[in-house]
Amino acid sequence: MQYQFHVTGMTCGHCERAVVHAVRNIDEEAIVKVDLPTGQVTVESDKARDVIATAIREEGYQVAA
Amino acid sequence: MQYQFHVTGMTCGHCERAVVHAVRNIDEEAIVKVDLPTGQVTVESDKARDVIATAIREEGYQVAA
Repeated sequence: MQYQFHVTGMTCGHCERAVVHAVRNIDEEAIVKVDLPTGQVTVESDKARDVIATAIREEGYQVAA
Repeated sequence: MQYQFHVTGMTCGHCERAVVHAVRNIDEEAIVKVDLPTGQVTVESDKARDVIATAIREEGYQVAA
């Protein structure tokens, strides 16, 4: 499945990598793309949307519902 | 010696840690304090000021002259 998330709180390349790694920690084969200026995060994964959103939130970022 | 640096480009806790680690990489006993909102970085180190400033710059941040 491909999901789109709107993530707020990412300010720099470190944050971008933190989000990518958070998703990869729960699905190592996930394809994650982050557009830092807009906060748009695209994830291709077999995991459920909620599981991915939770992983991003637990990393310290806000995910729009 | 204790030095004060004004560092710009730090946006989040990751950046703060990146600066601390950059300084510690050249002086593992350095005491580094970062005030993120103001960009004020205080370093207690036996190394020369220029060496520390260079380490911070090489990490990708701007240090005022």
